[in-house]
Amino acid sequence: MSNRAAIYGLMHGHGAAHGSRLLAVLPHAICTAGLLAMIAHTGIGAGSRADLVLSGIVTAVWGLFVAAYVLRIWTAPEAPEQRAASAAGARVAYLLSASGWIDLMAALALPAGWLTGLPQRDAQLFAIVWAFKYIRHASGLGSLLRVLQRAFPALVSIVTVFFITLLLAATLSYVFEREAQPEAFRSIPRALWWAIVTLSTTGYGDVVPVTIWGRLLAAWVMVGGIVLFALWAGIIANAFAEELQRRHFLKTWDLVAEVPFFQTLGAAAIADIVRLVRARDVAAGTVVVREGQAGDAMYFIISGEATVMFAPGPVTLSPGAFFGEMALLFGTRRSATVVVTKPSVLLVLDIADFRVLAGQRPELVNMIEAEGRRRREANAALRDS
Amino acid sequence: MSNRAAIYGLMHGHGAAHGSRLLAVLPHAICTAGLLAMIAHTGIGAGSRADLVLSGIVTAVWGLFVAAYVLRIWTAPEAPEQRAASAAGARVAYLLSASGWIDLMAALALPAGWLTGLPQRDAQLFAIVWAFKYIRHASGLGSLLRVLQRAFPALVSIVTVFFITLLLAATLSYVFEREAQPEAFRSIPRALWWAIVTLSTTGYGDVVPVTIWGRLLAAWVMVGGIVLFALWAGIIANAFAEELQRRHFLKTWDLVAEVPFFQTLGAAAIADIVRLVRARDVAAGTVVVREGQAGDAMYFIISGEATVMFAPGPVTLSPGAFFGEMALLFGTRRSATVVVTKPSVLLVLDIADFRVLAGQRPELVNMIEAEGRRRREANAALRDS
Amino acid sequence: MSNRAAIYGLMHGHGAAHGSRLLAVLPHAICTAGLLAMIAHTGIGAGSRADLVLSGIVTAVWGLFVAAYVLRIWTAPEAPEQRAASAAGARVAYLLSASGWIDLMAALALPAGWLTGLPQRDAQLFAIVWAFKYIRHASGLGSLLRVLQRAFPALVSIVTVFFITLLLAATLSYVFEREAQPEAFRSIPRALWWAIVTLSTTGYGDVVPVTIWGRLLAAWVMVGGIVLFALWAGIIANAFAEELQRRHFLKTWDLVAEVPFFQTLGAAAIADIVRLVRARDVAAGTVVVREGQAGDAMYFIISGEATVMFAPGPVTLSPGAFFGEMALLFGTRRSATVVVTKPSVLLVLDIADFRVLAGQRPELVNMIEAEGRRRREANAALRDS
Amino acid sequence: MSNRAAIYGLMHGHGAAHGSRLLAVLPHAICTAGLLAMIAHTGIGAGSRADLVLSGIVTAVWGLFVAAYVLRIWTAPEAPEQRAASAAGARVAYLLSASGWIDLMAALALPAGWLTGLPQRDAQLFAIVWAFKYIRHASGLGSLLRVLQRAFPALVSIVTVFFITLLLAATLSYVFEREAQPEAFRSIPRALWWAIVTLSTTGYGDVVPVTIWGRLLAAWVMVGGIVLFALWAGIIANAFAEELQRRHFLKTWDLVAEVPFFQTLGAAAIADIVRLVRARDVAAGTVVVREGQAGDAMYFIISGEATVMFAPGPVTLSPGAFFGEMALLFGTRRSATVVVTKPSVLLVLDIADFRVLAGQRPELVNMIEAEGRRRREANAALRDS
Repeated sequence: MSNRAAIYGLMHGHGAAHGSRLLAVLPHAICTAGLLAMIAHTGIGAGSRADLVLSGIVTAVWGLFVAAYVLRIWTAPEAPEQRAASAAGARVAYLLSASGWIDLMAALALPAGWLTGLPQRDAQLFAIVWAFKYIRHASGLGSLLRVLQRAFPALVSIVTVFFITLLLAATLSYVFEREAQPEAFRSIPRALWWAIVTLSTTGYGDVVPVTIWGRLLAAWVMVGGIVLFALWAGIIANAFAEELQRRHFLKTWDLVAEVPFFQTLGAAAIADIVRLVRARDVAAGTVVVREGQAGDAMYFIISGEATVMFAPGPVTLSPGAFFGEMALLFGTRRSATVVVTKPSVLLVLDIADFRVLAGQRPELVNMIEAEGRRRREANAALRDS
Repeated sequence: MSNRAAIYGLMHGHGAAHGSRLLAVLPHAICTAGLLAMIAHTGIGAGSRADLVLSGIVTAVWGLFVAAYVLRIWTAPEAPEQRAASAAGARVAYLLSASGWIDLMAALALPAGWLTGLPQRDAQLFAIVWAFKYIRHASGLGSLLRVLQRAFPALVSIVTVFFITLLLAATLSYVFEREAQPEAFRSIPRALWWAIVTLSTTGYGDVVPVTIWGRLLAAWVMVGGIVLFALWAGIIANAFAEELQRRHFLKTWDLVAEVPFFQTLGAAAIADIVRLVRARDVAAGTVVVREGQAGDAMYFIISGEATVMFAPGPVTLSPGAFFGEMALLFGTRRSATVVVTKPSVLLVLDIADFRVLAGQRPELVNMIEAEGRRRREANAALRDS
Repeated sequence: MSNRAAIYGLMHGHGAAHGSRLLAVLPHAICTAGLLAMIAHTGIGAGSRADLVLSGIVTAVWGLFVAAYVLRIWTAPEAPEQRAASAAGARVAYLLSASGWIDLMAALALPAGWLTGLPQRDAQLFAIVWAFKYIRHASGLGSLLRVLQRAFPALVSIVTVFFITLLLAATLSYVFEREAQPEAFRSIPRALWWAIVTLSTTGYGDVVPVTIWGRLLAAWVMVGGIVLFALWAGIIANAFAEELQRRHFLKTWDLVAEVPFFQTLGAAAIADIVRLVRARDVAAGTVVVREGQAGDAMYFIISGEATVMFAPGPVTLSPGAFFGEMALLFGTRRSATVVVTKPSVLLVLDIADFRVLAGQRPELVNMIEAEGRRRREANAALRDS
Repeated sequence: MSNRAAIYGLMHGHGAAHGSRLLAVLPHAICTAGLLAMIAHTGIGAGSRADLVLSGIVTAVWGLFVAAYVLRIWTAPEAPEQRAASAAGARVAYLLSASGWIDLMAALALPAGWLTGLPQRDAQLFAIVWAFKYIRHASGLGSLLRVLQRAFPALVSIVTVFFITLLLAATLSYVFEREAQPEAFRSIPRALWWAIVTLSTTGYGDVVPVTIWGRLLAAWVMVGGIVLFALWAGIIANAFAEELQRRHFLKTWDLVAEVPFFQTLGAAAIADIVRLVRARDVAAGTVVVREGQAGDAMYFIISGEATVMFAPGPVTLSPGAFFGEMALLFGTRRSATVVVTKPSVLLVLDIADFRVLAGQRPELVNMIEAEGRRRREANAALRDS
């Protein structure tokens, strides 16, 4: 492996060593340290020792971000999705990606502050853009954006109604209240402040209608605000739930389609299974099924290895095998403990979903039952021998 | 029954006597008394008689909790799910269970307070952990945790966006408002207080932006807060609804699969039925169906016994039988009153669901109809004779 | 018709005359007048003329309610659902119904006030129970109660978590804030006021934490409050949507099952149709379909009569017939105007649902198409002749 | 094209020239300018130069609205949906349409203000009705109204409960608080202000209960308010989601039914496809598929043209053709870049939906696969030659 590939691996938390897991957390720890220092800095008197220390931390974090940016540009061709592209093309792709823009902003934050000529503490306020680095945590954010895009026409309608309500409320409150409260309702722009605080049901209470008409208007604005935002929220939440289902379906399909046992079934059966199972990463040594417990799920091994602790001797299960079906089929307690012996990916089929599947695809359950009976008999034969 | 088993039964509200029903409520009543005494105590002047009484009640409740903890450890082997385990294993299982930890906390609450050396009233504040004892009421809480686990990636995205919004809002408000309000916006940590109060639309009004830019920022923060929390809420609520359905399916399946009449049907038909029926515990003596009323449901007896009050003489129905189907099939009023004569579990199939089922599974309705006609003729024959 | 039946009809807004429609609105108008008088009364100085007038109105309305209560008891045997019962049984049934209790409360409101010996204005405050009379408007309220019953376990869990959060928040805020604000956080009961105002995100601002720990606690309480209530709301809303669908299904089934055209189809097809159509009451003289317009729905006549304005001469359609299907089948504009000539009930099948149905039940669309073609040819033959 | 038709086209943003796209935005820009001038006007001292300028802008915008109204009446017969009607009928139709009423209001706004005899600045406040012109943006508003209509019975129930709660809360708070706060709780109408501010969880804090009973009442009102509004919101949001699905289904059906490839399938298959695809307008020159990327969707061309950039020479695809299916079928990366060469409408079938469809309609996937294999072989043959 080249130096470049090694550095790429380090920066993206690859590799199996414990050290690299630490490296995966490190960027976020550095970012958090920089932000906390900048925030704490604003509460410290100038010229004190803490002032110098915090300012130094912010500058040091900035230095690390500049270095990371340069290294990321250099190592861009190592990215798996860029293997086919030229080195220059891979670098441009990184520079133009969302990640590239955020890294650029992070690197330019302090220089931008220095250019303003403000004192150090104020110049460092630009470091707030580092907060965008956390967006990498937000793996669901892409879904969120796609959802907003899909629900766009409905959301535009609601924003339009929101603005019309806001304008009407501000104008009417200006008419009703300006004599009673000449300062707070001096003009419509001033009245807009009251309108937004009321429409969002925040209700600071710094501006409150006192006339009877102003209060009737306020009552309508409050109720209208709740209905408008609830509508908005309901639309987004519905679309988001749909999007999450789609992502689950897509991710699980690839896993299910790899299991030889399922490949003999048609696409329709696989689609039904995909909807019902859930993938789970399991660390080596985890006890998935414990003898004597009630059975609440069965498991398919996608990758890795599991061992069934039968009395005569343990049986090793490899990818493509399944276990835990007996307790579901016969309502008995677990007849053996199953331990995962390598880091594995399992598909989990809960008992409720197993029964839904039994309704939709009886032939699949028959196949599982036949396999289960075969194994039970083999097990009994082993015990007898 | 051994002493230990008797005490276990008493402490878990088993048994049929009215006294034991009282015992089931008793722990909650004691817990509530202790908490109320502790709360009231904080409003009472020191040294008064009420002070002594309330302090005494709190200490007495603590004594009961310590005793209960010891008894629960002793009787742990009597738990039905621990029958197979050794006595020591059963006790360790209880100690490590959620229930065990809560009981331990309850027992350690006052000693922890005394160790602080604070005056009695303040030391007793630790008794607030007794509130966790109510969690046993929250049977849906396990579902809630599982839901949070499933929706985890989406929720992490939203929390990330929430924190970025909070940081940006605090920093910008600090920049916009610190000159106009040097006290409230003295530093970013101070501005964060305003930001969270606004982002959650709580709007205390103790800190309110007064500059034009501060107010425009506030408008965005309010709207953003509503959208963020609504999103969060929508995701959890959707996932929770799904989880509730799964629990209903699982619970009802076991009941439906016991009815011989359904066992002749395939798993697919049973799955359809399970989705539509609801289990109901009915006390002995309840009139489930009253002659002459409109029929809105039919009933399957899972356990217990029901009596049909036919004119020639009552007919007793045992588990596996069904009644009330005639009114649904022929749109007539109830032709006889049906009374439950032993504590029973009934499956209820509402008229709306009966018709959905009639659409999905015409053969099932034909079976019910045939049985219904047979019974009606038998009924007529009885009357004629 | 006996006097009693006539009075029963008048009081329940039966009959076809315009006068009786007025009578249907009258009770609500009287109730509103009484409540408004009582409310306005509280804002009027004692001894003035307005005082006497408003007090008189309230007493008059009470007199009417007492009279109505007596009449309702007398006419109870006229209720259609009580035809089979004895007169005494019918009266007891009314007295014990929700409606009976509300009417009793309304009649006892003022006497209860007088018994207190308070001055007239305060005694009349008991008239606020008249507000419950409006509950008759809330036809969906029964569904709401059934929904709350079904979602009960989940709601209990949330209420439990809500109370635990409230207790913890109050205790911790008492600990954090009592030194800084000895008045507002003097005891836990006082702190509870702050906790509930914050947990519901109402945020009056009369009590606001000022210490750093108090504010961190407040941030958690605000966020927790939003999540808790959103959860609660989501569960109720989901269950309510389900319940509305069931009610629609049940109501529509009876209408669909009456149409001879559908009776030849099996129960499965009818269930599919029921899910897609919506019943609509149409007044005589309404133009349902207008020649030359785009077709967005087809209609089945359940009861009443409609006339197709064909050029050669109008054609009368009676219950069981359908119209408007041509524009859906062939994508053409409406070829004739259709007017409802008697008060009718129509089943409306929107174009979107028509296409869903075409996917699920092609045979049904073929039947409609055959009938449509037959009619179109008959129409052409008429025109040619 | 007549002058009238030309003006109609200009006013409705028809035509392909860039100038007319500007014209489409112009009305909204004018409206916004007028509203902003009116709003800013209220914040300006009388008699200043800015006063005159802003007043002039408002009057000028009004002049444009009057002119637009006259022109719209004149050109009404050019509307495509009015082609069949007489000129007078078309004009009456416009005058009575929602759009006509809004335009009339906009034209009458300033004259109405002048009639009041108020000073110019106050007279111009009537211009706030111009805000309704934005409603044209809100294409989803029609759906919203239809949703409110459908959910009407449920919403009426909730409004009834809301009003009863409001009345009870006001009366009880009046009883509890009037002695402690004689000013704020002087009468029930005054107490209603507190009740609505609390029930909507706005919580201004201008009126706050101070007695123990008043605070207990407030806690119930806050919790009740959240539950009530959440219920309302949930019902609307559910109904809205349903309505959006119906609109999508309807819009997409017409596009799908035009594709010859789909026409050979039955209505049931088309309905399944319609539920899964999404229409997308694509500008000429857009790269839809890029060689070497992972395939996440396939595309059907409804109208326009696309070119596949194969190595031997580009292949042009016309409406009815599809592309991008190979990556979905074989899990390979995109084998060629596809560029849209004319403004096109594409149907997008995401990979998740493709797999759902593969489950529901295996025969359709077989057809696509056969076509894909045919094309791949043709492609290989071209490369070999």
